[in-house]
Amino acid sequence: MEASGKPTVAVVGGTGALGTGLVKRLAGAGYNVKLGSRQQESAEAALTELLTEGPDWKISAHDNASAAAAADVVFVTVPFSAQSPTLESIKAAVNGKVVVDATVPLVPPKVARVQLPEAGSAGQIAQNILGEDVHVVSALQNVAAAHLNSGEPINCDVLVTGNIKTARQSVIDILADIGITGYHAGLINNAAAAEALTSILININKQYSTHAGIKITGIGD
Amino acid sequence: MEASGKPTVAVVGGTGALGTGLVKRLAGAGYNVKLGSRQQESAEAALTELLTEGPDWKISAHDNASAAAAADVVFVTVPFSAQSPTLESIKAAVNGKVVVDATVPLVPPKVARVQLPEAGSAGQIAQNILGEDVHVVSALQNVAAAHLNSGEPINCDVLVTGNIKTARQSVIDILADIGITGYHAGLINNAAAAEALTSILININKQYSTHAGIKITGIGD
Repeated sequence: MEASGKPTVAVVGGTGALGTGLVKRLAGAGYNVKLGSRQQESAEAALTELLTEGPDWKISAHDNASAAAAADVVFVTVPFSAQSPTLESIKAAVNGKVVVDATVPLVPPKVARVQLPEAGSAGQIAQNILGEDVHVVSALQNVAAAHLNSGEPINCDVLVTGNIKTARQSVIDILADIGITGYHAGLINNAAAAEALTSILININKQYSTHAGIKITGIGD
Repeated sequence: MEASGKPTVAVVGGTGALGTGLVKRLAGAGYNVKLGSRQQESAEAALTELLTEGPDWKISAHDNASAAAAADVVFVTVPFSAQSPTLESIKAAVNGKVVVDATVPLVPPKVARVQLPEAGSAGQIAQNILGEDVHVVSALQNVAAAHLNSGEPINCDVLVTGNIKTARQSVIDILADIGITGYHAGLINNAAAAEALTSILININKQYSTHAGIKITGIGD
């Protein structure tokens, strides 16, 4: 926890497109961000780049496990194929912490087809790997990396699932700080909905040459 | 096909909350609607009620199989537990037709939990039961029955899945006639996304005492 009252956050897989966008948004909102990558050198290279954009941003570069160890809340933004090994690599560092899994279980090359894993969802896989002592929350599957990186307002709501309500709320609070409305969306395996929706958005993106998102309607409108 | 150029539509399970709302919207838009129920008498009772609301509506009452036989496009709006027997009961009447399955695979009592069927989706189950000669389209899982019944504009987009693009388009055209924007969302098993999303909306409805829906963002905004 920082003097600001904000939790220290890590972005594991922080050199990817989604991770980089998230690091920018979090640092821009005043968070102290631990940028993680498999190799610390890659994280350092990304950091150098980022600091040209935001010289005052509080970001430091680490390998994934060290980034996770130094943070209160750990975002994981890696491709599905890297999810399990990445979670195994940070497992010892995240006991009792909130881990926000943003994994979408796309199966290339047919990424426009919903192909949910046997466990039900990537969120459930994360919970299974990390165990019940880790407060796994699933979120951010539907926000285009391009939008996170753009600096423009984000016209996409986020479905936040997880077995522990206070953990979901802590993530919703962080999302609010970066201008995103998050909704409590039930237990961790409900991540299946947001994960499946990404393939739908990929279909729509192809037709409209856009980066589509979703908004929840019927809340005060 | 009617003189209006509009297809004749059937609503199988047309006495339920979703079915009744859909019948009203379709009849209100000038469609000739075959209202189906397991018992023709139930359909007739529902019809009597509906005609007090719309005396000029072109609706007739049938058992489900007869309703399906008399229509070009057949909507199926039944609970998950009734989906398979209902589809079996209309199978002989829908060869070569478009069947729009609106089934949400909720498993009571835990309807706020995503519990997708082993086949992947209720849409895929419909395709499996009806066979490849039936143009199965999945749609309407996220529109609240209360909204369909209200007569107010519907602030919810519809994800339209199905293996045949022209069949999806014919459904999108009908939805447009009743004021709903439908989006091509890929092959039939992608229905999993919309089906799972219903449990998410149930979570949100509980928190906000509303009937939530979704809008796709990033299309011309």
